[in-house]
Amino acid sequence: MNNCIISNNITIKDNVILGDNVIIEENCYIDYGVIIRDNVHIKKGSFIGARCILGEYLMDFYVDRLNKVHPLVIGENALIRSETIIYGDTIIGNNFQTGHRVTIRERSQIGDNVRIGTLSDVQEDCNIGNFVSLHSNVFVGEKSVIKDYVWIFPHVVLTNDPTPPSEILIGVTIEAYAAVAAGSIILPGVNIGQDSLVGAGSVVNRDVEEETVVVGNPAKKLCSTRDIRNKFTGKKIYPWKYTFSRGMPWDKIGYEKWFNSENLK
Amino acid sequence: MNNCIISNNITIKDNVILGDNVIIEENCYIDYGVIIRDNVHIKKGSFIGARCILGEYLMDFYVDRLNKVHPLVIGENALIRSETIIYGDTIIGNNFQTGHRVTIRERSQIGDNVRIGTLSDVQEDCNIGNFVSLHSNVFVGEKSVIKDYVWIFPHVVLTNDPTPPSEILIGVTIEAYAAVAAGSIILPGVNIGQDSLVGAGSVVNRDVEEETVVVGNPAKKLCSTRDIRNKFTGKKIYPWKYTFSRGMPWDKIGYEKWFNSENLK
Amino acid sequence: MNNCIISNNITIKDNVILGDNVIIEENCYIDYGVIIRDNVHIKKGSFIGARCILGEYLMDFYVDRLNKVHPLVIGENALIRSETIIYGDTIIGNNFQTGHRVTIRERSQIGDNVRIGTLSDVQEDCNIGNFVSLHSNVFVGEKSVIKDYVWIFPHVVLTNDPTPPSEILIGVTIEAYAAVAAGSIILPGVNIGQDSLVGAGSVVNRDVEEETVVVGNPAKKLCSTRDIRNKFTGKKIYPWKYTFSRGMPWDKIGYEKWFNSENLK
Repeated sequence: MNNCIISNNITIKDNVILGDNVIIEENCYIDYGVIIRDNVHIKKGSFIGARCILGEYLMDFYVDRLNKVHPLVIGENALIRSETIIYGDTIIGNNFQTGHRVTIRERSQIGDNVRIGTLSDVQEDCNIGNFVSLHSNVFVGEKSVIKDYVWIFPHVVLTNDPTPPSEILIGVTIEAYAAVAAGSIILPGVNIGQDSLVGAGSVVNRDVEEETVVVGNPAKKLCSTRDIRNKFTGKKIYPWKYTFSRGMPWDKIGYEKWFNSENLK
Repeated sequence: MNNCIISNNITIKDNVILGDNVIIEENCYIDYGVIIRDNVHIKKGSFIGARCILGEYLMDFYVDRLNKVHPLVIGENALIRSETIIYGDTIIGNNFQTGHRVTIRERSQIGDNVRIGTLSDVQEDCNIGNFVSLHSNVFVGEKSVIKDYVWIFPHVVLTNDPTPPSEILIGVTIEAYAAVAAGSIILPGVNIGQDSLVGAGSVVNRDVEEETVVVGNPAKKLCSTRDIRNKFTGKKIYPWKYTFSRGMPWDKIGYEKWFNSENLK
Repeated sequence: MNNCIISNNITIKDNVILGDNVIIEENCYIDYGVIIRDNVHIKKGSFIGARCILGEYLMDFYVDRLNKVHPLVIGENALIRSETIIYGDTIIGNNFQTGHRVTIRERSQIGDNVRIGTLSDVQEDCNIGNFVSLHSNVFVGEKSVIKDYVWIFPHVVLTNDPTPPSEILIGVTIEAYAAVAAGSIILPGVNIGQDSLVGAGSVVNRDVEEETVVVGNPAKKLCSTRDIRNKFTGKKIYPWKYTFSRGMPWDKIGYEKWFNSENLK
């Protein structure tokens, strides 16, 4: 607990462990039993749930059991639910939200307004944009790239090794506004196009074009996303950015108005 | 720890945290490091494993960091294994059993004699009957309905959003005595019929009739459950209630005798 | 904490709980909040991550809440990451490595140089050889047999009940040098042949021959592993033991030289 900068205006519950060079800004809440290892910076207004581990040791710790410098930065107003583990050498943007028992490995970049669900496991060297939503138990393999406004649903697996086991890992890329439904598996190096939709339980072994729906094992093109109607309501849905706005920056004003106002900036 | 009613005849190990308005009945055992938040009622004879969190905060806590009243009731003789997290506003029947690291969200109803396996994740507003068995790492999406005597095997996913992302969630219904084998994915709004069997790795996108076996992606009817024989023993198995009884109320007397005696009540 | 033999030359952090008859050899490191129950033997040089539970209670504990004798032995130089739970009646070899939140049930045998990834769940009565690698969130059903040098990738499920629910469990066998890619499901009693490759997302319902690639739902033979080339590099890859050596005993000398020198022993 050397060299820490801890705001006076925070709540720290019992049994919290603080390492060296920790910064906790004002209005944070650190629940029971949280372990914050060295070189962690938690920005203002963040909530860290019970028994989270922040700044978890990288592999080099275990060589001599001395912690090296691998800073972790957590942006403002995070809501990190209990038992989440986040490694060092990672930078996370503002308004980050997790479920329980999320694991995030080292050397990832995570943008603003990202949500990662219970049990999800983000491996090292990933790049996650802004306003990305991962639901429960998503596996994000090493070197994955997930762009802005992407939705990934429960138990999806992003792979990276085309000839397992090998040393040549080639991550998946998921382009902006794409949605990958529950239980799908995306094979190494595959590009999931902008505004596309991968149906539940698909095994995707080739690139998916923009605004395209694929389903099956192996996944095949079913139709354009624009052909899809909700089978209960009969309404057209896609591109979803025009029909869904909860938690999105265009909430209340609509995508088009928001997009135009962004372009004027 | 205000307003708690704690029986004298219980075991509480070190580092247990108790909130307000907690009731713990006789013969309970609370293992190391359990966190029991406000308004939790644990009925007699229950075992709460190490580092469980009971009465976990709902979303409204994080607005002002004040806990609202969301009671959790856990029935008699529960066996809740270590690191399980259960939210408030949920009522769980007697003889509940979990594996490790189960997550159960708010506003669910869970009947008697239910077992939920390690890592399973039950989302909000679910309705689970009596004598239901979920194996490891089952994902039960919001608004799922699981009736009595249902079996769900490892890594099954029950979905709910027909056009992701959307606001219109339509849960799956699994009728009594149905069995869903490992790794299957059930699409939103699908009804899995009574006494039916979903084969392992199926992706089920339409209703399954009673006593029917479906397999594949997408799942198709294979045969009647009555046509199935165990490929190792050659014996007929289904409806399983006539050939399997461990943990069921007809244990030792057989289904038929039990069923008839129930009808006489 | 009766009858314990604890080396002087170890590190034990705060809030560690020690049961009876515990042996901890020299140069071990026990991180914050670890629970070591009775009859656990940790051999020299091992690291036990924060809040692991070693020697977890078997079902017989819950009958009368008295712990029975179910010894757990963890070999030399283990690296067990935080929140892993390992039951009693299990013997684990040297150089064992886990990710976070692994669960290992009772009565398993685990060889030397085994790695088990984050969230993986090994059920009871399993037999795992040497130099086996399980990635994240692998489910290893009761009675599975995994031989030496096997690779299993994220979210693979090894099943065991041919007619669920039943009392007749027949485990999967995975022969030496086989690789099972992400999200595959192996049906009860299936034998995955030596040096074979199961493609991602496969549902394997019959035996796989040696050096054979299978894919699909249900899985079908695609080709010999010797026909596979890396689609990015064009190189032949399989049998992988000739092209990959990181962490293997033939590291630096190559498989053939190592194999010949082994035969001379």
